[in-house]
Amino acid sequence: MNPIVLVVGGTGTIGSAVAERLREDHTVIVAARRNADIVVNVTSTHSIREMYAQVGSVDAVVSTVGSAVVGGTGELTEDDYLQSFSNKVLAQISLVRLGLGVIAPGGSVTLTGGVLGTEPHPGYAAISMVNAALDGFCRAAAVDLRSRIRVNIVSPVFVAESFPGFDPGGFPVQSAADTARAYASAVTGSFTGRVVDPRNVGAQRPDTDITGGNARSKR
Amino acid sequence: MNPIVLVVGGTGTIGSAVAERLREDHTVIVAARRNADIVVNVTSTHSIREMYAQVGSVDAVVSTVGSAVVGGTGELTEDDYLQSFSNKVLAQISLVRLGLGVIAPGGSVTLTGGVLGTEPHPGYAAISMVNAALDGFCRAAAVDLRSRIRVNIVSPVFVAESFPGFDPGGFPVQSAADTARAYASAVTGSFTGRVVDPRNVGAQRPDTDITGGNARSKR
Repeated sequence: MNPIVLVVGGTGTIGSAVAERLREDHTVIVAARRNADIVVNVTSTHSIREMYAQVGSVDAVVSTVGSAVVGGTGELTEDDYLQSFSNKVLAQISLVRLGLGVIAPGGSVTLTGGVLGTEPHPGYAAISMVNAALDGFCRAAAVDLRSRIRVNIVSPVFVAESFPGFDPGGFPVQSAADTARAYASAVTGSFTGRVVDPRNVGAQRPDTDITGGNARSKR
Repeated sequence: MNPIVLVVGGTGTIGSAVAERLREDHTVIVAARRNADIVVNVTSTHSIREMYAQVGSVDAVVSTVGSAVVGGTGELTEDDYLQSFSNKVLAQISLVRLGLGVIAPGGSVTLTGGVLGTEPHPGYAAISMVNAALDGFCRAAAVDLRSRIRVNIVSPVFVAESFPGFDPGGFPVQSAADTARAYASAVTGSFTGRVVDPRNVGAQRPDTDITGGNARSKR
Protein backbone atom coordinates (compact mmCIF):
# COMPACT_ATOMS: atom_id res chain seq x y z
CA MET A 1 0.00 0.00 0.00
CA ASN A 2 1.29 3.46 -0.86
CA PRO A 3 2.20 5.77 2.01
CA ILE A 4 -0.38 8.45 2.77
CA VAL A 5 0.67 12.10 2.50
CA LEU A 6 -1.40 15.07 3.59
CA VAL A 7 -0.48 18.17 1.56
CA VAL A 8 -1.73 21.25 3.40
CA GLY A 9 -2.01 24.11 0.94
CA GLY A 10 -2.08 21.53 -1.84
CA THR A 11 -4.14 23.66 -4.22
CA GLY A 12 -1.57 26.48 -4.41
CA THR A 13 1.20 26.87 -6.98
CA ILE A 14 3.84 24.92 -5.07
CA GLY A 15 1.38 22.68 -3.23
CA SER A 16 -0.31 21.38 -6.37
CA ALA A 17 3.07 20.64 -7.94
CA VAL A 18 4.07 18.75 -4.79
CA ALA A 19 0.78 16.81 -4.77
CA GLU A 20 1.18 15.94 -8.44
CA ARG A 21 4.71 14.67 -7.96
CA LEU A 22 3.94 12.66 -4.82
CA ARG A 23 0.90 11.00 -6.44
CA GLU A 24 3.32 8.88 -8.47
CA ASP A 25 3.85 6.65 -5.45
CA HIS A 26 1.82 8.05 -2.57
CA THR A 27 -1.81 8.37 -1.67
CA VAL A 28 -2.22 12.14 -1.51
CA ILE A 29 -4.84 13.97 0.54
CA VAL A 30 -5.10 17.66 -0.27
CA ALA A 31 -6.15 20.15 2.40
CA ALA A 32 -6.76 23.81 1.60
CA ARG A 33 -9.09 26.70 2.29
CA ARG A 34 -11.42 25.57 -0.51
CA ASN A 35 -11.75 23.12 -3.43
CA ALA A 36 -9.83 20.43 -1.55
CA ASP A 37 -10.34 16.94 -0.09
CA ILE A 38 -10.40 18.59 3.32
CA VAL A 39 -11.17 22.23 4.00
CA VAL A 40 -8.89 23.85 6.58
CA ASN A 41 -8.01 27.30 7.84
CA VAL A 42 -4.47 26.93 9.19
CA THR A 43 -4.65 30.14 11.20
CA SER A 44 -7.19 28.37 13.45
CA THR A 45 -5.94 25.59 15.74
CA HIS A 46 -9.54 24.40 15.99
CA SER A 47 -9.69 23.97 12.21
CA ILE A 48 -6.32 22.16 12.18
CA ARG A 49 -7.55 19.76 14.87
CA GLU A 50 -10.67 19.05 12.80
CA MET A 51 -8.53 18.38 9.72
CA TYR A 52 -6.36 15.89 11.58
CA ALA A 53 -9.43 14.21 13.08
CA GLN A 54 -10.74 13.68 9.53
CA VAL A 55 -7.53 12.15 8.16
CA GLY A 56 -7.03 9.86 11.16
CA SER A 57 -3.47 8.77 10.47
CA VAL A 58 -0.92 9.70 7.80
CA ASP A 59 2.69 8.86 7.01
CA ALA A 60 3.69 12.38 6.09
CA VAL A 61 2.47 15.95 6.26
CA VAL A 62 3.67 18.56 3.79
CA SER A 63 2.81 22.21 4.40
CA THR A 64 3.01 24.80 1.64
CA VAL A 65 0.99 27.47 3.43
CA GLY A 66 1.73 30.89 4.84
CA SER A 67 2.43 34.36 3.60
CA ALA A 68 4.21 37.38 5.05
CA VAL A 69 4.07 41.14 4.48
CA VAL A 70 6.33 42.67 1.82
CA GLY A 71 8.33 45.68 2.99
CA GLY A 72 11.68 46.93 4.20
CA THR A 73 12.95 47.49 7.73
CA GLY A 74 12.15 51.19 7.61
CA GLU A 75 8.58 50.75 6.37
CA LEU A 76 7.07 47.76 8.16
CA THR A 77 5.00 48.27 11.31
CA GLU A 78 4.94 46.17 14.46
CA ASP A 79 1.63 44.73 13.26
CA ASP A 80 3.20 43.74 9.90
CA TYR A 81 5.80 41.63 11.72
CA LEU A 82 3.20 40.13 14.05
CA GLN A 83 0.81 39.26 11.22
CA SER A 84 3.64 37.71 9.21
CA PHE A 85 4.68 35.64 12.19
CA SER A 86 1.14 34.43 12.92
CA ASN A 87 0.35 33.65 9.31
CA LYS A 88 3.46 31.78 8.26
CA VAL A 89 5.34 30.69 11.43
CA LEU A 90 2.69 30.07 14.07
CA ALA A 91 0.37 28.31 11.59
CA GLN A 92 3.05 25.88 10.49
CA ILE A 93 4.24 25.28 14.06
CA SER A 94 0.62 24.38 14.89
CA LEU A 95 0.60 21.88 12.01
CA VAL A 96 3.58 20.15 13.63
CA ARG A 97 2.36 20.36 17.24
CA LEU A 98 -1.16 19.16 16.54
CA GLY A 99 0.00 16.54 14.04
CA LEU A 100 2.15 14.68 16.55
CA GLY A 101 -0.52 12.11 17.34
CA VAL A 102 -1.58 11.75 13.71
CA ILE A 103 1.72 11.25 11.89
CA ALA A 104 2.75 7.60 12.09
CA PRO A 105 6.00 6.78 13.94
CA GLY A 106 8.85 7.02 11.47
CA GLY A 107 6.84 9.48 9.39
CA SER A 108 7.73 13.03 8.50
CA VAL A 109 6.61 16.62 8.35
CA THR A 110 7.98 19.04 5.75
CA LEU A 111 7.36 22.78 6.09
CA THR A 112 7.90 25.74 3.75
CA GLY A 113 10.32 28.58 4.41
CA GLY A 114 12.12 30.55 1.75
CA VAL A 115 15.52 31.57 0.50
CA LEU A 116 15.17 35.14 1.86
CA GLY A 117 15.70 33.68 5.33
CA THR A 118 19.38 33.22 4.54
CA GLU A 119 19.88 35.31 1.38
CA PRO A 120 18.18 38.67 1.97
CA HIS A 121 17.18 41.21 -0.68
CA PRO A 122 16.30 44.83 0.14
CA GLY A 123 12.63 45.33 1.00
CA TYR A 124 11.66 41.98 2.53
CA ALA A 125 12.61 42.19 6.21
CA ALA A 126 9.52 40.42 7.61
CA ILE A 127 9.75 37.64 5.03
CA SER A 128 13.41 37.07 5.88
CA MET A 129 12.54 37.03 9.56
CA VAL A 130 9.71 34.47 9.29
CA ASN A 131 11.65 32.15 7.00
CA ALA A 132 14.65 32.14 9.32
CA ALA A 133 12.32 31.55 12.29
CA LEU A 134 10.93 28.45 10.56
CA ASP A 135 14.41 27.17 9.73
CA GLY A 136 15.33 27.46 13.41
CA PHE A 137 12.10 25.82 14.55
CA CYS A 138 12.59 22.86 12.20
CA ARG A 139 16.16 22.29 13.35
CA ALA A 140 14.96 22.31 16.98
CA ALA A 141 11.84 20.20 16.35
CA ALA A 142 13.93 17.59 14.54
CA VAL A 143 16.10 17.24 17.66
CA ASP A 144 13.09 17.10 19.99
CA LEU A 145 11.20 14.56 17.85
CA ARG A 146 14.14 12.51 16.60
CA SER A 147 12.79 9.22 17.93
CA ARG A 148 9.28 9.80 16.53
CA ILE A 149 9.19 11.63 13.19
CA ARG A 150 11.50 13.52 10.83
CA VAL A 151 11.14 17.31 10.46
CA ASN A 152 12.51 19.24 7.48
CA ILE A 153 11.86 22.50 5.70
CA VAL A 154 12.10 23.40 2.03
CA SER A 155 13.44 26.87 1.29
CA PRO A 156 12.10 27.76 -2.18
CA VAL A 157 13.51 30.46 -4.38
CA PHE A 158 11.16 32.58 -6.52
CA VAL A 159 8.68 30.22 -8.19
CA ALA A 160 8.10 31.26 -11.79
CA GLU A 161 4.41 30.26 -11.94
CA SER A 162 3.48 32.15 -8.74
CA PHE A 163 3.49 35.59 -10.33
CA PRO A 164 3.18 35.18 -14.11
CA GLY A 165 4.72 38.11 -15.92
CA PHE A 166 6.41 39.46 -12.79
CA ASP A 167 10.06 40.36 -13.28
CA PRO A 168 11.96 38.56 -10.52
CA GLY A 169 14.82 41.07 -10.74
CA GLY A 170 17.83 39.78 -8.88
CA PHE A 171 15.99 36.81 -7.36
CA PRO A 172 16.91 33.24 -8.22
CA VAL A 173 14.01 31.53 -10.02
CA GLN A 174 12.83 27.92 -10.37
CA SER A 175 9.75 26.23 -11.75
CA ALA A 176 7.11 24.80 -9.42
CA ALA A 177 7.98 21.30 -10.64
CA ASP A 178 11.67 21.75 -9.76
CA THR A 179 10.66 23.14 -6.37
CA ALA A 180 8.37 20.14 -5.80
CA ARG A 181 11.34 17.83 -6.26
CA ALA A 182 12.81 19.18 -3.00
CA TYR A 183 9.63 18.32 -1.08
CA ALA A 184 9.60 14.81 -2.54
CA SER A 185 13.22 14.44 -1.45
CA ALA A 186 12.29 15.40 2.14
CA VAL A 187 9.26 13.07 2.20
CA THR A 188 10.99 10.01 0.75
CA GLY A 189 14.45 10.59 2.25
CA SER A 190 15.78 9.56 5.65
CA PHE A 191 17.21 12.87 6.84
CA THR A 192 15.87 15.20 9.53
CA GLY A 193 16.52 18.77 10.68
CA ARG A 194 17.50 19.89 7.18
CA VAL A 195 16.80 23.17 5.40
CA VAL A 196 16.47 21.85 1.83
CA ASP A 197 17.40 24.29 -0.94
CA PRO A 198 15.61 23.16 -4.13
CA ARG A 199 18.52 24.45 -6.21
CA ASN A 200 20.56 21.61 -4.71
CA VAL A 201 18.00 18.94 -5.64
CA GLY A 202 18.48 18.95 -9.39
CA ALA A 203 17.17 16.40 -11.85
CA GLN A 204 20.63 16.02 -13.36
CA ARG A 205 22.53 15.75 -10.09
CA PRO A 206 20.44 13.54 -7.85
CA ASP A 207 20.92 14.17 -4.15
CA THR A 208 24.49 15.37 -4.38
CA ASP A 209 23.87 17.79 -1.54
CA ILE A 210 21.24 15.78 0.28
CA THR A 211 22.61 13.36 2.82
CA GLY A 212 20.64 10.31 3.76
CA GLY A 213 18.23 10.33 0.82
CA ASN A 214 17.07 6.88 -0.18
CA ALA A 215 16.87 5.43 -3.67
CA ARG A 216 13.33 6.67 -4.30
CA SER A 217 14.41 10.27 -4.02
CA LYS A 218 17.11 9.76 -6.59
CA ARG A 219 14.95 9.85 -9.69
CA MET B 1 34.75 63.05 22.12
CA ASN B 2 33.92 59.42 22.78
CA PRO B 3 31.11 57.84 20.75
CA ILE B 4 27.82 57.49 22.64
CA VAL B 5 26.39 53.99 23.08
CA LEU B 6 22.95 53.19 24.46
CA VAL B 7 22.93 49.73 26.08
CA VAL B 8 19.32 48.57 26.42
CA GLY B 9 19.17 45.88 29.08
CA GLY B 10 22.45 47.20 30.41
CA THR B 11 21.80 46.14 34.00
CA GLY B 12 21.53 42.42 33.17
CA THR B 13 24.31 39.84 33.26
CA ILE B 14 25.43 40.30 29.66
CA GLY B 15 24.34 43.94 29.42
CA SER B 16 26.36 45.10 32.40
CA ALA B 17 29.46 43.30 31.09
CA VAL B 18 28.94 45.00 27.71
CA ALA B 19 28.49 48.41 29.37
CA GLU B 20 31.62 47.89 31.46
CA ARG B 21 33.72 46.94 28.45
CA LEU B 22 32.45 49.75 26.23
CA ARG B 23 33.04 52.38 28.96
CA GLU B 24 36.76 52.10 28.23
CA ASP B 25 36.34 54.29 25.16
CA HIS B 26 32.63 55.13 24.83
CA THR B 27 30.12 57.23 26.68
CA VAL B 28 27.62 54.60 27.84
CA ILE B 29 23.96 55.26 28.59
CA VAL B 30 22.23 52.34 30.30
CA ALA B 31 18.51 51.73 29.75
CA ALA B 32 16.63 49.05 31.67
CA ARG B 33 13.38 48.37 33.47
CA ARG B 34 14.78 49.87 36.67
CA ASN B 35 17.97 51.19 38.32
CA ALA B 36 19.22 52.64 35.03
CA ASP B 37 20.05 55.99 33.44
CA ILE B 38 16.79 55.65 31.49
CA VAL B 39 13.86 53.46 32.48
CA VAL B 40 12.31 51.56 29.58
CA ASN B 41 9.89 48.71 29.00
CA VAL B 42 10.90 47.29 25.62
CA THR B 43 7.61 45.44 25.16
CA SER B 44 5.96 48.86 24.77
CA THR B 45 6.66 50.87 21.62
CA HIS B 46 5.47 53.94 23.52
CA SER B 47 8.14 53.38 26.16
CA ILE B 48 10.82 52.81 23.48
CA ARG B 49 9.85 56.08 21.77
CA GLU B 50 10.14 57.90 25.11
CA MET B 51 13.58 56.37 25.69
CA TYR B 52 14.84 57.51 22.29
CA ALA B 53 13.37 60.99 22.84
CA GLN B 54 15.39 61.24 26.04
CA VAL B 55 18.72 60.21 24.50
CA GLY B 56 18.31 62.46 21.46
CA SER B 57 21.10 61.03 19.32
CA VAL B 58 23.53 58.14 19.76
CA ASP B 59 26.26 56.48 17.72
CA ALA B 60 25.30 52.95 18.63
CA VAL B 61 22.53 50.95 20.25
CA VAL B 62 23.21 47.60 21.88
CA SER B 63 20.28 45.44 22.97
CA THR B 64 20.69 42.62 25.46
CA VAL B 65 16.99 42.19 26.22
CA GLY B 66 14.41 39.50 25.63
CA SER B 67 13.54 36.07 26.94
CA ALA B 68 11.67 33.08 25.54
CA VAL B 69 9.79 30.14 27.01
CA VAL B 70 11.74 26.94 27.80
CA GLY B 71 10.16 23.76 26.45
CA GLY B 72 10.22 21.18 23.70
CA THR B 73 8.18 20.93 20.52
CA GLY B 74 5.72 18.50 22.09
CA GLU B 75 5.10 20.60 25.20
CA LEU B 76 4.93 24.25 24.16
CA THR B 77 1.58 25.87 23.43
CA GLU B 78 0.70 28.36 20.71
CA ASP B 79 0.76 31.07 23.35
CA ASP B 80 4.29 30.05 24.44
CA TYR B 81 5.55 30.64 20.90
CA LEU B 82 3.65 33.91 20.56
CA GLN B 83 4.89 35.23 23.92
CA SER B 84 8.46 34.25 23.06
CA PHE B 85 8.20 36.03 19.73
CA SER B 86 6.74 39.21 21.24
CA ASN B 87 9.19 39.33 24.11
CA LYS B 88 12.46 38.69 22.31
CA VAL B 89 11.91 39.27 18.56
CA LEU B 90 9.27 41.97 18.28
CA ALA B 91 10.81 44.02 21.10
CA GLN B 92 14.24 44.05 19.46
CA ILE B 93 12.80 44.76 16.01
CA SER B 94 11.04 47.77 17.58
CA LEU B 95 14.38 48.96 18.98
CA VAL B 96 15.75 48.98 15.42
CA ARG B 97 12.66 50.46 13.73
CA LEU B 98 12.14 53.25 16.22
CA GLY B 99 15.87 53.95 16.55
CA LEU B 100 16.32 54.78 12.87
CA GLY B 101 16.00 58.53 13.40
CA VAL B 102 18.12 58.48 16.56
CA ILE B 103 21.18 56.48 15.55
CA ALA B 104 23.68 58.73 13.77
CA PRO B 105 24.48 57.95 10.11
CA GLY B 106 27.33 55.46 10.04
CA GLY B 107 26.32 54.21 13.48
CA SER B 108 25.25 50.71 14.45
CA VAL B 109 22.73 48.56 16.23
CA THR B 110 23.69 45.23 17.79
CA LEU B 111 21.00 42.80 18.93
CA THR B 112 21.06 39.60 20.99
CA GLY B 113 20.13 36.17 19.69
CA GLY B 114 21.61 32.91 20.88
CA VAL B 115 23.44 29.80 19.78
CA LEU B 116 20.30 27.63 19.98
CA GLY B 117 19.10 29.34 16.80
CA THR B 118 21.64 27.35 14.82
CA GLU B 119 22.76 24.62 17.26
CA PRO B 120 19.60 23.19 18.84
CA HIS B 121 19.39 21.12 22.02
CA PRO B 122 16.33 19.05 22.97
CA GLY B 123 13.73 21.03 24.91
CA TYR B 124 14.20 24.56 23.61
CA ALA B 125 12.11 24.83 20.44
CA ALA B 126 10.75 28.34 21.03
CA ILE B 127 14.17 29.67 21.98
CA SER B 128 15.70 28.21 18.81
CA MET B 129 12.87 29.71 16.77
CA VAL B 130 13.19 33.24 18.16
CA ASN B 131 16.98 33.31 17.90
CA ALA B 132 16.88 32.18 14.28
CA ALA B 133 14.16 34.77 13.56
CA LEU B 134 16.44 37.50 14.89
CA ASP B 135 19.40 36.25 12.85
CA GLY B 136 17.22 36.45 9.72
CA PHE B 137 15.90 39.89 10.61
CA CYS B 138 19.40 41.27 11.19
CA ARG B 139 20.68 39.93 7.87
CA ALA B 140 17.71 41.57 6.11
CA ALA B 141 17.86 44.84 8.06
CA ALA B 142 21.57 45.16 7.27
CA VAL B 143 20.75 44.98 3.56
CA ASP B 144 17.86 47.44 3.87
CA LEU B 145 19.85 49.93 5.95
CA ARG B 146 23.27 49.48 4.37
CA SER B 147 23.65 53.16 3.45
CA ARG B 148 22.56 54.39 6.90
CA ILE B 149 23.66 52.17 9.80
CA ARG B 150 25.21 48.75 10.44
CA VAL B 151 23.08 45.95 11.93
CA ASN B 152 24.58 42.89 13.63
CA ILE B 153 23.56 40.30 16.17
CA VAL B 154 25.56 38.50 18.83
CA SER B 155 24.67 34.86 19.37
CA PRO B 156 25.81 34.05 22.92
CA VAL B 157 26.37 30.58 24.26
CA PHE B 158 25.42 29.76 27.86
CA VAL B 159 26.72 32.60 30.05
CA ALA B 160 28.21 31.19 33.24
CA GLU B 161 27.14 34.06 35.52
CA SER B 162 23.49 33.98 34.37
CA PHE B 163 22.55 30.92 36.39
CA PRO B 164 25.12 30.42 39.15
CA GLY B 165 25.36 26.78 40.20
CA PHE B 166 23.31 25.56 37.21
CA ASP B 167 24.85 22.61 35.37
CA PRO B 168 24.96 23.64 31.69
CA GLY B 169 25.01 19.98 30.63
CA GLY B 170 25.98 19.74 26.98
CA PHE B 171 25.83 23.49 26.37
CA PRO B 172 28.90 25.47 25.44
CA VAL B 173 29.70 28.00 28.17
CA GLN B 174 31.46 31.36 28.26
CA SER B 175 31.90 34.12 30.83
CA ALA B 176 29.92 37.36 30.57
CA ALA B 177 33.19 39.22 29.94
CA ASP B 178 34.10 36.97 26.99
CA THR B 179 30.58 37.37 25.63
CA ALA B 180 30.86 41.15 25.95
CA ARG B 181 33.91 41.09 23.72
CA ALA B 182 31.68 40.04 20.80
CA TYR B 183 29.40 43.05 21.32
CA ALA B 184 32.40 45.40 21.47
CA SER B 185 33.61 43.87 18.21
CA ALA B 186 30.25 44.59 16.54
CA VAL B 187 30.12 48.17 17.89
CA THR B 188 33.68 49.13 16.97
CA GLY B 189 34.00 47.07 13.77
CA SER B 190 33.00 47.98 10.23
CA PHE B 191 30.95 44.89 9.31
CA THR B 192 27.18 44.57 8.93
CA GLY B 193 24.65 41.74 8.62
CA ARG B 194 26.79 39.41 10.73
CA VAL B 195 25.72 36.81 13.30
CA VAL B 196 28.67 37.09 15.68
CA ASP B 197 29.53 33.96 17.67
CA PRO B 198 31.44 35.05 20.79
CA ARG B 199 33.45 31.82 20.67
CA ASN B 200 35.09 33.20 17.53
CA VAL B 201 36.04 36.51 19.16
CA GLY B 202 38.74 35.27 21.49
CA ALA B 203 41.21 37.37 23.43
CA GLN B 204 44.08 35.33 22.04
CA ARG B 205 42.97 35.34 18.42
CA PRO B 206 41.74 38.84 17.72
CA ASP B 207 39.14 39.01 14.95
CA THR B 208 40.36 35.94 13.08
CA ASP B 209 36.78 35.15 12.12
CA ILE B 210 35.48 38.69 12.03
CA THR B 211 35.85 40.34 8.65
CA GLY B 212 36.03 44.08 8.40
CA GLY B 213 36.83 44.79 12.04
CA ASN B 214 38.90 47.92 12.56
CA ALA B 215 41.95 48.33 14.74
CA ARG B 216 39.97 49.21 17.84
CA SER B 217 38.22 45.85 17.85
CA LYS B 218 41.54 44.04 17.75
CA ARG B 219 42.49 44.44 21.39
